[in-house]
Amino acid sequence: MTTMTVELGERSYPISVEANLLSQASLLSPYIEKKRVVVVSNQTVADLYADKLGTILGQVKYDLILMPDGEQYKNLQTFEQVIGELLTLGAGRDTILIALGGGVVGDLTGYVAASFQRGIPFIQIPTTLLAQVDSSVGGKTAVNHPLGKNMIGAFYQPKAVVIDTTTLSTLPDREFAAGMAEVIKYGIIYDLAFFEWLEQNKQKLMDKDPDALAYAISRSCEIKAEIVALDERESGIRALLNLGHTFGHAIEAEQGYGNWLHGEAVAAGMILAAKASEAKEWLEASETRRIVDLLSVFELPLDKPEGMGFTAFMKHMRHDKKVAAGQIRFILPQGLGKAVVTSDLSESLLTELLN
Amino acid sequence: MTTMTVELGERSYPISVEANLLSQASLLSPYIEKKRVVVVSNQTVADLYADKLGTILGQVKYDLILMPDGEQYKNLQTFEQVIGELLTLGAGRDTILIALGGGVVGDLTGYVAASFQRGIPFIQIPTTLLAQVDSSVGGKTAVNHPLGKNMIGAFYQPKAVVIDTTTLSTLPDREFAAGMAEVIKYGIIYDLAFFEWLEQNKQKLMDKDPDALAYAISRSCEIKAEIVALDERESGIRALLNLGHTFGHAIEAEQGYGNWLHGEAVAAGMILAAKASEAKEWLEASETRRIVDLLSVFELPLDKPEGMGFTAFMKHMRHDKKVAAGQIRFILPQGLGKAVVTSDLSESLLTELLN
Repeated sequence: MTTMTVELGERSYPISVEANLLSQASLLSPYIEKKRVVVVSNQTVADLYADKLGTILGQVKYDLILMPDGEQYKNLQTFEQVIGELLTLGAGRDTILIALGGGVVGDLTGYVAASFQRGIPFIQIPTTLLAQVDSSVGGKTAVNHPLGKNMIGAFYQPKAVVIDTTTLSTLPDREFAAGMAEVIKYGIIYDLAFFEWLEQNKQKLMDKDPDALAYAISRSCEIKAEIVALDERESGIRALLNLGHTFGHAIEAEQGYGNWLHGEAVAAGMILAAKASEAKEWLEASETRRIVDLLSVFELPLDKPEGMGFTAFMKHMRHDKKVAAGQIRFILPQGLGKAVVTSDLSESLLTELLN
Repeated sequence: MTTMTVELGERSYPISVEANLLSQASLLSPYIEKKRVVVVSNQTVADLYADKLGTILGQVKYDLILMPDGEQYKNLQTFEQVIGELLTLGAGRDTILIALGGGVVGDLTGYVAASFQRGIPFIQIPTTLLAQVDSSVGGKTAVNHPLGKNMIGAFYQPKAVVIDTTTLSTLPDREFAAGMAEVIKYGIIYDLAFFEWLEQNKQKLMDKDPDALAYAISRSCEIKAEIVALDERESGIRALLNLGHTFGHAIEAEQGYGNWLHGEAVAAGMILAAKASEAKEWLEASETRRIVDLLSVFELPLDKPEGMGFTAFMKHMRHDKKVAAGQIRFILPQGLGKAVVTSDLSESLLTELLN
């Protein structure tokens, strides 16, 4: 088992990665002692892992709250429903929540944990690749507002992140590919050697080779843990993790949440960012080509949605959380393995890029 | 001007108390530099203080968001509306919120500040006695859920609390009295000398004598700041601030939010707590008498609502945030000037007390 720690003083917590982790009896016992356990999941995931839950909880009794599946349900209405169910169950400050599912379940459950009775502990058990390498680590919890993605939330760290790579065997190919977009992102912004490893091992990853998967996930979590420890509340370096996200969030919002998967929008967004970098001579055309090639292995979208142009992008990007003093901020690669935050993209460059 | 500090390391902040504080030009300048300012208030309060806002902000431009007035609007629907207005205004992480109003405005605005784009700074300018001595200090922010008061929220500290005692001149008598219930609470749980000072100065307070008011408010804030600094997240001593609140929240919920004012419910709740203490021989009958006498000066309710009995109380108290391991916890005075947290109230005692 690979274990990393997100170093945040008294809020530090472990990330464990291994195949068949959810078959380890009483895996969660240290966290749930003297706690009342409530698991939040959706029907699909709960059906797959209902038996294993009993195993990892060491036969401790738990309640299960099911939420609907899909990004369009990551909103305040579902949030209020889950809190209503917790109250109906009689849950209190002695309760610990377990988020069992993908990013939607994890983000919403985390924000419920941050808010219920002003905060109770929670554990992340991500079951999609995207949640395993990104949203379950780092304490960003949120729901969407009709006017913008993740606009309502909290920085609220889990007590532990438990990643069983075996769960990926039941993941639809399209969702697996969307997760790979975030894995590739880590290489581009932070680690050229990892990017090269991904290029060399792309076929193994496509085949879901257990060792390759475990390494890709562990290295992604390691990079994220390192960056989060340096900058928990995104006042600096953490913003780099948003490569492709300024454009990507605009795509998701414009297309309607759930129609493009988050990772798909990020893939298209990273290519737009690479092209912008190229225009600023921060990236060679050959480097953009390598990014495109790697993303295309996983059949990710390589271009923005048909018909979506400058005006539509700007409408959403003006609401981006990274806007500072009225300026939209972009994350752009500077070579492979390094990226910077900049507002210095001229309107003419953006117009050309987006039309 | 009396200034106190809530000592919370890098989250420390000042509380300033004085008559006519809102007439001091540029009072808020240190906090709003390079920030975009959005004031959240309601129509009544905004009408009264619209002119002064310009003064204290030093003519800085600001946007105003109005929310409806009343405890029944302290809910997730209003929360979502305010966030929607912030997004429509194009507010971002460079925005600072100012909560101008009573406890409803302060609690809701604080939770919006905690949640909007995962957290932006805010300032409390409380304009009711209850908000000045209690809810604006200490970082408890929240909205209500149909199943329970303040069930959704965050511990999130303001950057400053600015208390202009002159605002009380426009406060309805009933709301002034409700605030006095919380002032008296501080004497009972923490400071016999303050309780005696209140007994001696009750007529001055009824007459809204400026010096007496300023002292009562400052001493209340001082006690609250001291307790919050010791126990920000209510894992110990801070629970004492909830004297009368276990019973009080049940009264508010049963009667429908807004029908009994919070302070009125707390007054009746403190008398129930005193009677419970008396039954346990922790309080003399003469001490209960003094509590009742002091509350009655302000014409506060001295008994639970007619017809509300054991069953109705228990229905709500089971959801109280202080419930731990299935046990309802009560704050009971032990003599005047001291209180304890206990679950040791027998069902027969509760039945007798509440029927």
